[in-house]
Amino acid sequence: MSSERIFVGWETSFCQDLPATLERVYEEKMNAVIAPLFHPRFKRDDALISDARDGPQTRSDLVLDSRGWTSSVVGNISKWIRPDAQCPRARLASEKAFKQEVAWATHLSVPAVLLPTPTPRCANYARLVNQSATQAQYLQFWVRVPLTTRSRESVSLAEDDTEDLPSPWEAWNTLRTMCQYHPKVSVALEITADLPSNEELQRWLGEPVRAVLIPTDVFLTNRKGYPTLSQRHQRFFLDLFKYNIQYYLTGRPRHGGGKFLPYVQYLHFLYSKRPGMDSKSLFEAPYLDYLQAPLQPLMDNLESQTYETFEQDNFKYDQYEKAIVKALAATPEDKESVVMVVGAGRGPLVRCALRAAVTANRKTRMYAVEKNPNAVITLRNLKISEKWDNVKIIASDMRHWAAHEKADIMVSELLGSFGDNELSPECLDGAQAFLKEDGVSIPCKYTSFMAPIMSSKLWNDVKALDGLKHFETPYVVRLHNIYSIAPSQPCFVFEHPKFDIPRIDNRRFLEMTFTAEESAVVHGFAGYFDSVLYEDVTLSIHPPTHSDGMFSWFPIYFPLREPVSVAKGEEMHVSFWRMVSSTKVWYEWSMTTRDGRAATTLHNPNGRSYWIGL
Amino acid sequence: MSSERIFVGWETSFCQDLPATLERVYEEKMNAVIAPLFHPRFKRDDALISDARDGPQTRSDLVLDSRGWTSSVVGNISKWIRPDAQCPRARLASEKAFKQEVAWATHLSVPAVLLPTPTPRCANYARLVNQSATQAQYLQFWVRVPLTTRSRESVSLAEDDTEDLPSPWEAWNTLRTMCQYHPKVSVALEITADLPSNEELQRWLGEPVRAVLIPTDVFLTNRKGYPTLSQRHQRFFLDLFKYNIQYYLTGRPRHGGGKFLPYVQYLHFLYSKRPGMDSKSLFEAPYLDYLQAPLQPLMDNLESQTYETFEQDNFKYDQYEKAIVKALAATPEDKESVVMVVGAGRGPLVRCALRAAVTANRKTRMYAVEKNPNAVITLRNLKISEKWDNVKIIASDMRHWAAHEKADIMVSELLGSFGDNELSPECLDGAQAFLKEDGVSIPCKYTSFMAPIMSSKLWNDVKALDGLKHFETPYVVRLHNIYSIAPSQPCFVFEHPKFDIPRIDNRRFLEMTFTAEESAVVHGFAGYFDSVLYEDVTLSIHPPTHSDGMFSWFPIYFPLREPVSVAKGEEMHVSFWRMVSSTKVWYEWSMTTRDGRAATTLHNPNGRSYWIGL
Repeated sequence: MSSERIFVGWETSFCQDLPATLERVYEEKMNAVIAPLFHPRFKRDDALISDARDGPQTRSDLVLDSRGWTSSVVGNISKWIRPDAQCPRARLASEKAFKQEVAWATHLSVPAVLLPTPTPRCANYARLVNQSATQAQYLQFWVRVPLTTRSRESVSLAEDDTEDLPSPWEAWNTLRTMCQYHPKVSVALEITADLPSNEELQRWLGEPVRAVLIPTDVFLTNRKGYPTLSQRHQRFFLDLFKYNIQYYLTGRPRHGGGKFLPYVQYLHFLYSKRPGMDSKSLFEAPYLDYLQAPLQPLMDNLESQTYETFEQDNFKYDQYEKAIVKALAATPEDKESVVMVVGAGRGPLVRCALRAAVTANRKTRMYAVEKNPNAVITLRNLKISEKWDNVKIIASDMRHWAAHEKADIMVSELLGSFGDNELSPECLDGAQAFLKEDGVSIPCKYTSFMAPIMSSKLWNDVKALDGLKHFETPYVVRLHNIYSIAPSQPCFVFEHPKFDIPRIDNRRFLEMTFTAEESAVVHGFAGYFDSVLYEDVTLSIHPPTHSDGMFSWFPIYFPLREPVSVAKGEEMHVSFWRMVSSTKVWYEWSMTTRDGRAATTLHNPNGRSYWIGL
Repeated sequence: MSSERIFVGWETSFCQDLPATLERVYEEKMNAVIAPLFHPRFKRDDALISDARDGPQTRSDLVLDSRGWTSSVVGNISKWIRPDAQCPRARLASEKAFKQEVAWATHLSVPAVLLPTPTPRCANYARLVNQSATQAQYLQFWVRVPLTTRSRESVSLAEDDTEDLPSPWEAWNTLRTMCQYHPKVSVALEITADLPSNEELQRWLGEPVRAVLIPTDVFLTNRKGYPTLSQRHQRFFLDLFKYNIQYYLTGRPRHGGGKFLPYVQYLHFLYSKRPGMDSKSLFEAPYLDYLQAPLQPLMDNLESQTYETFEQDNFKYDQYEKAIVKALAATPEDKESVVMVVGAGRGPLVRCALRAAVTANRKTRMYAVEKNPNAVITLRNLKISEKWDNVKIIASDMRHWAAHEKADIMVSELLGSFGDNELSPECLDGAQAFLKEDGVSIPCKYTSFMAPIMSSKLWNDVKALDGLKHFETPYVVRLHNIYSIAPSQPCFVFEHPKFDIPRIDNRRFLEMTFTAEESAVVHGFAGYFDSVLYEDVTLSIHPPTHSDGMFSWFPIYFPLREPVSVAKGEEMHVSFWRMVSSTKVWYEWSMTTRDGRAATTLHNPNGRSYWIGL
């Protein structure tokens, strides 16, 4: 999501002349202003929109054209509004003013309104926000949340003393849970001079943060008198820069002679220091947090474009080539090995094997087995154009091919994001019928991994698809706006070949226990895999060991129908099943917390919503 | 949909070396090629994709990268394929080849395949096309249809003699009706030397024509030896240029020394002669055939942006100003008239009235009545900034305002695309309580108009919305890819004021009889209105009298749940109801053909799917 520039604006608590304020904002190289929609001292009574009142209640919409409102102004909802006040009169006046301000913001077509910080007891506030967000077509609702409670600039809705408040995240979590993670309700994160723990900072990266508010008194002064941020602040900003966020300075300028420009320039300077985009990042950029249905490689045929994309993953094929070289080098020098590529596609592994045979200096006979008749056309053309004289093309499903001889080395690339989820186990079990007893499978082992994650973005995207089915389906997705609540753990393991087992059973069950590193909401589970191709040659998309620059696989996301809140240190017991019938394979999953405080339903029983066809 | 250039390509029936063919196509300034996917002489037997066959069945997908396939190649399905052949063996071989070619096209990611011309008896062909189109994710299916039967280049699937065939449109209509107007199945219209009647040509403008095939022998030779088209051909092309269509030359070059370039240049030259885009066309361009839900102006408040757009319709406000000038000029010179703008919005009609008072040289007292509290804020600001000293702003619903005095002239702009559909009748009936007995309403009369139309585009867009509700809802839409099957007829009429009627009844019922000018399919009805503001000052969106340059209203489209085929000369009896309850207004509609051959269900009974809230 990184673009060339960041979007910087100014939050002002008072704005007499909006066009003049915008002039100043543009002069100081900023893009927009967060301004009050109504005069801050204009605390209205019950007769808010009375017919009797003759003067206008606020400035005219005509001071800007609609393009100006849409691109350059965010509305600041009045801070005096207290929808959860004890006094019924104050409460009703607050509700009326809130609705009037949101109606006016809608009329103006401003992109968003900035809402005051919630307190933990904010039911009526949440009801108002949820009602407005549900009615709104385009308007976004940014909830101001400070990083720590004692922020000087933060404004509270509560009448209580702020001493007793839990963390600002808890209040936000209460509000958005009451709004059922409404996709229009997001966070305007207010930076504070003191920063909370790194774990708490990381947690914000799993939240829908749309804006960051930066009080000018958070900045330090460098030796030349210019504003700068502490090292920890800088590191947090470098994390934030990965997301599509707008940055707003708040308060009065304290450096550079009453100008904002030095702050703006500093933010752009900091942004320019973020790590550059390598080719993997560029490839992944359009897919960040984008849900894709997993492939059905047995039931469907891949398209030319799909082959073309994955054939460009040089790291992956280099590893395969190394693995085949090692496997061939382990054979006697004078032996002619039979190498079979099962699931040859358009031939990249055949090329790896041919190159490996040259490097290892071994004679080989090869077979390329492929069930997709379109890919077979490509293979047959390649056999002619690239002179694959020792390669036989076999148009067949590897599970059913009646081979005339057996392989010494069987090479395949059948893994999915969760390892076994594209049915590599079932395919290789079938193909092992034509692997010699002492034959080698490349890969020989793969392990899936799993971690509970928070991501209202992903959960809302699943919800938008509508229907139970979608909450019981895993998605291939380049995880981005997420927080990993606990370290990942290994899940299912498969090894090939399996000659010593009388009846191979590819069903699996595992209960994993995770411990929450911070209070958070579990929106589902992230899945990964790592794989041993041959001896020390591996492939991995598991974050701690991710193969450098490899882009063929994104992680997988298993959603939960209802998110589960967990407290810091709380245990999560996650059950995962891999089920097999004669026609299909599927997963089921569920989660409970300690002492059964919360238990999810079983997801995808009998594969009713999602399965992979055999 | 007009863009700067047209997309021109070449259809070839034989293509040995695709990259070389594309080289030539680019050299001759063309964009793409329609080429056979399999060798035309390669008439395959039942063992099409046999394991035994060792050589590739067609060229490799690797001759182009996927971008090349996607942007520059359309696949030509083999013309020997006859899915409706009598002989079962030929039939099954055809089916198998058809599926193989479509699978290969899908594998290549070409944007479309060109299908052979259907015959009227094409059930098995239609089944195959429908099956493929339903399975396809991106692939489009272009059905080759010549303008007239005796086209030299046209190829037929039938084994019969072509003498007995009905018009090519009939065969296309049969095929696409069997495919239930599938949005992926469209027309590649083959131009013929002889053109059918103008009415038949117009009918194609209501069909989903995606490509036009132009045999080179259709061109005439001008005095300098260059290709040119007949006047009638030119006029038809100028019509076609309004749509998003690709143009493909077919056959061998007959002019300019074996080059296609002169043809390509002629087509670009002809395109450059199309009428330019005026500001109305530019405004409308993004909305062509785009379905919009009609406004609910009483229940919802318009937004600032919406006001801003409509306030720019100078023609409309000029007409209002003229009407008010005439109405004021008809009053005694020394009289101070009371002018009330009911539904004043952000004040454009107030400005018209103020200017008119100056032009007519009359004294006035004015009232601006508006129910939207956001627009009232604008009006109150305008009263100050523009010194509207004789204008009172009234924040009230005109139906309920307790006025202290009555108006001489009441001005409103409450009309919808179908005249009364935004409840102008009900609003003005309420407001007439404060209009003098001899007072004037501007507008004083409006009439809706209706015509049956063919447009599988619009019908499919409604179908994509899913659910009965959407087929019983009218849509505001800038009609574009439609054919008007019969001339429009007046529908409902409303006049204001109505002092002489004891109890005003705004219900209406009308049965209209239309006669089809050509065989066609009724996909619904187009609605329009015209309106008398005052005496000879009018506003109209009814095509025969459309006000020049006015863009405030698009037509309305009432869909039919099931399209109805009608023969040339057949009568269509269309019933339309306007129904009123204490809380809402709605329309119901239905159609029968002569002798009840076809009758639709009643649409929207009791306003179950669509209504306008009072």
